[in-house]
Amino acid sequence: MALIGPEIERLIHLLAKLPGLGPRSARRAALSLLKKRETLMQPLAQALYDADAAIVGCAVCGNLDTVSPCSVCRDTRRDQKTLCVVEDVADLWALERASVFRGRYHVLGGALSALDGVTPEKLNVDSLIARAAEMDEVILAMNATVEGQTTAHYLIDALRSSGVKVTRLAHGVPVGGELDYLDEGTLSAAFKARRGM
Amino acid sequence: MALIGPEIERLIHLLAKLPGLGPRSARRAALSLLKKRETLMQPLAQALYDADAAIVGCAVCGNLDTVSPCSVCRDTRRDQKTLCVVEDVADLWALERASVFRGRYHVLGGALSALDGVTPEKLNVDSLIARAAEMDEVILAMNATVEGQTTAHYLIDALRSSGVKVTRLAHGVPVGGELDYLDEGTLSAAFKARRGM
Repeated sequence: MALIGPEIERLIHLLAKLPGLGPRSARRAALSLLKKRETLMQPLAQALYDADAAIVGCAVCGNLDTVSPCSVCRDTRRDQKTLCVVEDVADLWALERASVFRGRYHVLGGALSALDGVTPEKLNVDSLIARAAEMDEVILAMNATVEGQTTAHYLIDALRSSGVKVTRLAHGVPVGGELDYLDEGTLSAAFKARRGM
Repeated sequence: MALIGPEIERLIHLLAKLPGLGPRSARRAALSLLKKRETLMQPLAQALYDADAAIVGCAVCGNLDTVSPCSVCRDTRRDQKTLCVVEDVADLWALERASVFRGRYHVLGGALSALDGVTPEKLNVDSLIARAAEMDEVILAMNATVEGQTTAHYLIDALRSSGVKVTRLAHGVPVGGELDYLDEGTLSAAFKARRGM
């Protein structure tokens, strides 16, 4: 569309690359930004620069923070002998929000995927094996997807020689879930892992 | 969540203000930005600054462009005597994409809404009435919502004294639409406005 200048065109093009925004919603977002220049557009530009300058990847675990090692790795009150392996920083954040784990993390940076060309070399596997040697337990908290479970199986094999205890998250009926709406895989996993009362 | 630094916190907070992004998708967007710093995060920050610096509102019609009057208002090949009134710049873009109108536009900047406190004084109504005096026809292209139609009725009253011909877009079955899926209001409008073959 020749009508829109290159500046808006470029802004829309970049906004459309964000997850959750398509071409149409990127246009809406660009217009909304242009309407709220002082309150949204300029602060967002500044926030992007600030975050880019301040945020670094943790050299130990792969988390994102303003310091490296990150605040989780530095926290001496956390259990230093239990390691929770996650695919992504978002998963680490989710577990921290739920406050279910008080040990340390290891972010793989993705999951194995033949389709997307993600091989073990592209993930932080070597550093995990090095760290695992000093741990009492390694908890594999991969997503319950094909890629996530493939990765978990790969890691179980890779960690076998270190002799560390390896566990994985339980699969079953999610809290609040109705059986009628659950898939066969989940129901089957929940049955197999049933517990005595 | 104390875990995330203030820089990411602020970035997520601002991203969540964009239409189409909630708190969860803003988190995903922030992580995606932090993963693609050179290709997305820095260019987006620059694009926001550039667009903010370059884009101005057209003093005549309210469109957004790098010049004022905007390129639509300057285009002498366009019909100077037909004015299409839209609620928002996004509507102007939509009509331009469809290439259905070759006259000039007038952007109201919203629609009347008692709930949101949008009164006629907050819209570009005065400038519309001034411009309408020089026109052969004013086409009201408001949204077919309660607010849009309220605005259209208000403008019909406001434009009556100027004696200009006022028209509005046809309501009816959208092209490709199936009757079974349409609401009663649309079906009723389509019946009332039926045409001889």
